[in-house]
Parts: sequence; C-alpha cells; structure tokens
Amino acid sequence: MTEADFIAALRALPLHPGAQQLRDDTARLGELVLTTDTIVEGVHYLSEDAAADVAWKLLAVNLSDLAAKGAVPEGALLNYPLGDDGWDRDFLNGLGETMNRFDCPLLGGDTVSLPHGAPRVISLTAVGRASRSPARSGARAGDMLYVTGTIGDAGAGLRIATGEDGPDSLAIAYRRPHPRLGEGRALGAVARAMMDVSDGLLIDAARMADASGLAVAIDLAAVPLSSDLRAFAGDDRNARLAAVTAGDDYELLFAMPPGETPPVAATRIGRFAAGTGLSLQDNDGPIALPDRIGFEHRA
Amino acid sequence: MTEADFIAALRALPLHPGAQQLRDDTARLGELVLTTDTIVEGVHYLSEDAAADVAWKLLAVNLSDLAAKGAVPEGALLNYPLGDDGWDRDFLNGLGETMNRFDCPLLGGDTVSLPHGAPRVISLTAVGRASRSPARSGARAGDMLYVTGTIGDAGAGLRIATGEDGPDSLAIAYRRPHPRLGEGRALGAVARAMMDVSDGLLIDAARMADASGLAVAIDLAAVPLSSDLRAFAGDDRNARLAAVTAGDDYELLFAMPPGETPPVAATRIGRFAAGTGLSLQDNDGPIALPDRIGFEHRA
Repeated sequence: MTEADFIAALRALPLHPGAQQLRDDTARLGELVLTTDTIVEGVHYLSEDAAADVAWKLLAVNLSDLAAKGAVPEGALLNYPLGDDGWDRDFLNGLGETMNRFDCPLLGGDTVSLPHGAPRVISLTAVGRASRSPARSGARAGDMLYVTGTIGDAGAGLRIATGEDGPDSLAIAYRRPHPRLGEGRALGAVARAMMDVSDGLLIDAARMADASGLAVAIDLAAVPLSSDLRAFAGDDRNARLAAVTAGDDYELLFAMPPGETPPVAATRIGRFAAGTGLSLQDNDGPIALPDRIGFEHRA
Repeated sequence: MTEADFIAALRALPLHPGAQQLRDDTARLGELVLTTDTIVEGVHYLSEDAAADVAWKLLAVNLSDLAAKGAVPEGALLNYPLGDDGWDRDFLNGLGETMNRFDCPLLGGDTVSLPHGAPRVISLTAVGRASRSPARSGARAGDMLYVTGTIGDAGAGLRIATGEDGPDSLAIAYRRPHPRLGEGRALGAVARAMMDVSDGLLIDAARMADASGLAVAIDLAAVPLSSDLRAFAGDDRNARLAAVTAGDDYELLFAMPPGETPPVAATRIGRFAAGTGLSLQDNDGPIALPDRIGFEHRA
C-alpha cells in the first residue's frame, strides 16, 4: 500500500471530528493542536548523522507543524528505542537543547528495546495551543501566496551533508531547521490558509491549492534564495527549480487576501485563482513544470 | 542504558509539570490524560501473531493506562510503518474493531517506510479526559489493596499462544485484553491510588507501595483466579505464584480506605502499612517472595 492508499483506508476507521478527515498535518482537541512524526534510521536520517542533530530535527519538524497552525508549544511525548549508550546520551542532550531553545518541555513517553541490528525508529508527538488555526484549505481566488525565509537551503545542505563541498550554513539548515513558531503565531490570526514547506515548495503549494479547490500560479523569479545558496548553486532557472523541488525547508507557506500586508517578514511568490493545478512562470513568462515537483510519497 | 537509567536521564530534560516527574504512566494537560506505547515485532509480539490481534492489544494497553486514571477515551494517534499489504489491511481492520469496541476514534498519525526486513515498530498515543485521577502514590497506611477481574489468565494464555494445549479463553485473554474503562471511571473519584497491572501483580503492587512510601502485604490465597486458569494450571502455591508474577493482566489495582466498599466488582488482596517493601502470605502465614516478581526492566 502506498501512503495515500493507507490514509484512504484510515478514513474508514472511526474518526474523531478533530482529525479533520486526516486532511491536515495536525489534529485538534479544543484549543489543543496535536501532531506526530516518526523518523527511521537509513530512511529519514543517515546512520552516521550526529544523534544530537537527529533529536533536533525530530522535535523541530513536529514544532513546524504546530507553527503552521499558529500554535504555542505545550509539550512533547517521545517514543524511543534504547540502543548504544553514547548515542542515546547524545540524543537526549540534543533533545534537551532543542526543547530549551523552542520552549517545549517533555510530557512523557515510552522506551523499548529493538532486536539486535534493527534500524532505530523514533516517534515524537507534540502538543500545542492555539485559539485559531488557519486550515490548509482556506485560500480564496485572488489571494496572494507568501513564504517566510528562504527556500532550498536545506536541499543544498543535504548535498553538503552527504559529501559535496559547500558552506556550513547550508548543511546546518538541513540538520537543524528552525520552526517558524513566532511567525506562525502572528499569522495564525490573519492568514487565510497556512502550512509548512516540508516536501518541497511546489508540491506543498499545489497541495494548498488542491485543498482549497483552486489553481495557483508561482513566480519562480520571486522565490527567495539565500546568498549562501546562490553562491553555492547559482541563480539560474535550473538552480531555482532545484530549490523549489527540494524538501526540508520548514518555512511557512500562507495565503493572504490581496491588499493585506503580512505581519511578518515574508515574500510574495504567487497567486490563487479559480481553476485547478499548479503553474509556474519565470521572468520571460510561463515555463513547464519539472517532472518531479517534490517528495510525492514521502511517508 | 537500562530503561531506568534512561528515565533518570530524561528527568534532566526540561519537564512539563503535567509529566509528573515521569513517575506515572500518563501525562496530564488540564482535564486531558495522555499516554503512549510502542510495540516491536519480535519483542512485544510474535511475527506470526495475527495483525488484528496486534492492533487490538496496542490500543487496549494504551486504554488500560487511561482506565487507571479514570479517564474516558477521547482519541488516538497512530505511528505506523507501511509493509505488507495484507498485514496492513488486517491491522487496520483490527484497529477499527477495537476503536469501535472501546469508543476511541482516530485523531491522526504518521506513516513511514522501513528498510527491507526491519522489524515493525508501531506506536500509539491515546488521549482521554478525566476531572480527577488517582495517582500511583496516593495509598495511605491502613488502606486496603484491591484488584478487578482475575489474575494470571494472560500469562497462561501466552503459554497457549506459543504452543501449549489449553483453553481458547486464556489465549484470548493474552491476545485481546479488555481495558477496565468503566471500572476506572467509577474508581477515579474514590480510589486513593490506582494503576493497571501490566508487568505482574506483585511487581506492580510493590511499585504502588514504593511510590506511596509504604509497605504492602499481599494474601496469595485471596488473589482471584479464573476457573479456566485453575483447570489449566491448578490452584496450588506454585500455580498462584506463577499467576501473580506473569504480566499482561491489564486489571486495575487500587487502594481504598479501610471500611469503604469499592463501587465496582473487585477482590481485596492486601493491605498497606507503614514501612517499605512487599511481603506475601498464604493460608499458613508468611511465605518467601519468588526470585522474580514480574517483568522488571520491561521497556
């Protein structure tokens, strides 16, 4: 079964109203927002990655889901497989650092032992609090599409983390993403739709448009790239296409009515319209979509 | 690191007040009670176990933690590794059946892919609601110790599930435990201390006494055994010692003041007193504790 088949099968189970038909990354329980993510050694991270970085990223990606709901972190539950003492201690040190950094204390968890040689599988469930959360599906025709920060740094960082020469800043963007919690809080009350960019800017924008029953047009030239990324990968169309189809940005993608100014630093990169589908333009006009617009079946 | 070392290390992380210093099986967030459990193929269940039974047990053991807090289930989050289609569908069917049976709908979750051949690791986080929850540590000297249902059925059921001849009823007690949600709700308002019996009656009673800063004496002859268990394993001292040191009962163990009658069917099996430690008596007077009183480092 693909992930999509499995989620379709999950919809046949008794669903809580707060599950929102499993069409969002989070569940809602009154003012609480819940999200959970699992990472697997050799799938979501490399065996040689530093344990403290793995811990940072596991918590950060969950907090990014909370940020996209405008939520303040309340706490986290950890499901952890005991293994090598040194790795376990480094993981806990990294987790503690990340918890302090983003003000998300431990609520509880569970530990297990794995059969010898089995890859680590680590889950974290984060709980946040928000009075109002923009849905992924709330964009309207005419709304402008914005993104926080810069796009593509983590994608380049993965290349550097796996052996290419390049600046540390990009590798760090991959290893230690910063969830946009402050921005999410400010946007929670005003964005018409919001989600985080985890699988690639193009695919995630297409998902927002699809959930909203709209088309979206993105201006490739407007997508914000960092100076480090431009120095590393250039700034031509191919470099930009690589940036908008790479994953792990953990920036916030959101829709605002035309004429309204976002309350946070963000770049306008596109526009929603009646219709369906994603289209792309560059300075010279419409361009074809790349074959792969992001991580499609990333589980 | 042992589980105990790891939990001690977790206490050095920033802790949410609702984590209750990680001294309980659940976390508390206002009226919400949260608990999470992970099961591993080849560790917590056998590869040949039916997927629907694995799903039942995973949800049931989490709901048993909620029952011990007097909580009504609100919903559950699932972390699931996609694998074999048939197994995945059977698992979902079993999960749906269990969710309907115990009125605990799906709130959300996450799916991942595992490297080929890796053992399944499945986590479930259950959320419940309770206005008051008895702590594990609330027993007072003179309180009586009670247990719901019968003890040892699941332990015998494991022997039957792994090849011995014996009645189905015991194998089912092992494969499909029933969380005592109704009893937990009734006891939530009146029990002085409560927990579920998961690692063995003796070890769990010793933990309640330790958390309460007390000694506990248990009357082995008073421990309730089912007629099926007595027919299968006998009713002598050794059979009773096997029952009280086996795990997976998922009954409720609770303390009540002397003279008060529990509002649910339960058996009085012991008494708390000033001091420390666990002692055991039979009809003839004090008897020695067995070498192993339960699953000590069960992670």
